[in-house]
Amino acid sequence: MLFSTYTTDFLKWLSVQKYTQLVVLVDENTFLYCYPLLKNELPTHFLVKIPAGENHKNLQTCTQIWEQYTQFSLDRKALILHLGGGVLGDMGGFCASIYKRGVRFVQIPTTLLSQVDASVGGKLGIDFQNLKNHLGVFQNPENVWINPIFLDTLSKREKKSGFAEMLKHGIILSKNHWENLTESGDVLSGAVLENEQKNWENQDWQNVIRQSVLLKDDVVKRDFKEENIRKLLNFGHTIGHSVESYALTENISLLHGEAVAIGMHIETWLAYKKGILGENDFLEISNYLEKTYFIDDFFKSFLEKIKILENEKNLKDNQENDFKNTLFEAIFAFTLQDKKNQNHKILASLPTEIGKGIFDVEISKSDFFEGLSYFFGKF
Amino acid sequence: MLFSTYTTDFLKWLSVQKYTQLVVLVDENTFLYCYPLLKNELPTHFLVKIPAGENHKNLQTCTQIWEQYTQFSLDRKALILHLGGGVLGDMGGFCASIYKRGVRFVQIPTTLLSQVDASVGGKLGIDFQNLKNHLGVFQNPENVWINPIFLDTLSKREKKSGFAEMLKHGIILSKNHWENLTESGDVLSGAVLENEQKNWENQDWQNVIRQSVLLKDDVVKRDFKEENIRKLLNFGHTIGHSVESYALTENISLLHGEAVAIGMHIETWLAYKKGILGENDFLEISNYLEKTYFIDDFFKSFLEKIKILENEKNLKDNQENDFKNTLFEAIFAFTLQDKKNQNHKILASLPTEIGKGIFDVEISKSDFFEGLSYFFGKF
Repeated sequence: MLFSTYTTDFLKWLSVQKYTQLVVLVDENTFLYCYPLLKNELPTHFLVKIPAGENHKNLQTCTQIWEQYTQFSLDRKALILHLGGGVLGDMGGFCASIYKRGVRFVQIPTTLLSQVDASVGGKLGIDFQNLKNHLGVFQNPENVWINPIFLDTLSKREKKSGFAEMLKHGIILSKNHWENLTESGDVLSGAVLENEQKNWENQDWQNVIRQSVLLKDDVVKRDFKEENIRKLLNFGHTIGHSVESYALTENISLLHGEAVAIGMHIETWLAYKKGILGENDFLEISNYLEKTYFIDDFFKSFLEKIKILENEKNLKDNQENDFKNTLFEAIFAFTLQDKKNQNHKILASLPTEIGKGIFDVEISKSDFFEGLSYFFGKF
Repeated sequence: MLFSTYTTDFLKWLSVQKYTQLVVLVDENTFLYCYPLLKNELPTHFLVKIPAGENHKNLQTCTQIWEQYTQFSLDRKALILHLGGGVLGDMGGFCASIYKRGVRFVQIPTTLLSQVDASVGGKLGIDFQNLKNHLGVFQNPENVWINPIFLDTLSKREKKSGFAEMLKHGIILSKNHWENLTESGDVLSGAVLENEQKNWENQDWQNVIRQSVLLKDDVVKRDFKEENIRKLLNFGHTIGHSVESYALTENISLLHGEAVAIGMHIETWLAYKKGILGENDFLEISNYLEKTYFIDDFFKSFLEKIKILENEKNLKDNQENDFKNTLFEAIFAFTLQDKKNQNHKILASLPTEIGKGIFDVEISKSDFFEGLSYFFGKF
């Protein structure tokens, strides 16, 4: 991994790599905002541009990518640079790992979300029938270049989405990281004022990003294929992924980190309800998530759209059903496809205290519904 | 690997495996001819049936497979049995390795070709735009069950196709194996009459299959990702794959082993022409391939169809072009996509004597055309 704001550091690394052809994969956004920062400094390369957004993270877009690589007659010793967020990195890595049974690639994550999450850990994949990352492989990139300068190209909403994964690393892996992210006071000296939570934007980004990445990297190194400890990183994702898949299917705008924030909020409550997590930690996590995510315009609009949609469905079907019943069943249906499940049991990772967690906790359908009910009742 | 004609041996192995769901993947043919031999003895399982044949080895069929797995809510701890030939094993293995980032699978090869070649070595994949195995991964199965009983379900033509890969193992890896396969006399006692080549059907199949599989397995274990010695196994495939892709595109019937026999014949001549292979060995290989493959009906029909097709094309384009020029360019175009190539150089593996070979030999476009010219001129 290369943490650097200097392009020259990356070019230096690149100059000693052996490859036959160089390719840069961008999407519509990174083509406009990130590629110009590198374009003239990179050696001769092919450029492949794909549409942006989670709804393009599918086999159709992969087919476009493979067609381009085939047209360029890319060989097995080519090197591909993925300049983009998590969707592009995950899909690009998947395509590279499968083209001619594997071509090397480099991740250059351009969003906070992909810098602290997707770019580390070798999980690659695409959605299938709106199921998140339903198809994929485990494969490490040749290198990951994490450059906070790209974050200046992000909207506030996107940045906050990435921040949710950093909070997750704090909640489930490191109390120290959680405190750095959420507590006011001088982070470096460790002087912290009790009970005073700071605004999420007020961060020493370079430092907290590095801390978050290294926390994840450490877990991944201990369990690459996610057979035990790595499962902790799925905290917030059992319910979060289902809500995200639901939103994707219904065309309701919801970013990954926003879905994870919802997932963490509900799963934290489930941990508390099950007696796994104490009340103080439960309240500290809940309150911070609420004031950071659930007072936003995106969230109000998300709730609004869900209500309209579900009312329409009930009217159309001439059903007397409770609105929530229809919605909860729809969200629950996605959870049944969760990759963590075994023997049709839904398994989640939950916090036991801030900075620690357990995995493979079984979540029943009634737990799931109670969680959704708690959440949608509250907001 | 399990070499056994007894289903009970396989069931014994299966009974100690841990899995949540069991799936059997078959094609139309193995559903009719092989599945009935196992059906009632296997534990409860899902059955997935796909169309048979190389022209279905593509993303469309994979999508059908993934849709079925999704409908069954297959989880990561499922186990999938692939009952079929190389197409089914390659494609099934590819689908399993990618579904939810990897589900375990067992290969039960039902053709001679897949028993001695595809089922060993972890190369999985599908065709893309008629390019052979253009998309794929390296992944080992949990087990391979090699049962010669399934060979009774094969046509003579299919069996002979598989035999070509066995000859390849002899030519490039082991003179002893070549002699066992081609020379008359008692194989077990080693009493061999000089210069007398036997009919290909007259084999101690159980023994020669095992020898062939172990020869390949040994090479694969030394170089799983095909970075050096494993490249030897591509003998006959540089030109063979191109001829096969051409036939696939033009809808001309040609089995994989038949294409490899053509490829080996041409590449053996190239080795001789380049001074890499001596005349005696060149003649021994050539003669055996000719009398075994190039006097058959399939081959005459193959040549016939090519001639009709190319004449039609030339007429349609109102071209005065030489027939061979159009054909050779068409075949050559596929070679440019060969996975072994680097820096647009075409690389092949060639025999240096019977039982030995070298890899990464550069083949120029004029070598390629001369080879095709030699072959199509001769027959």
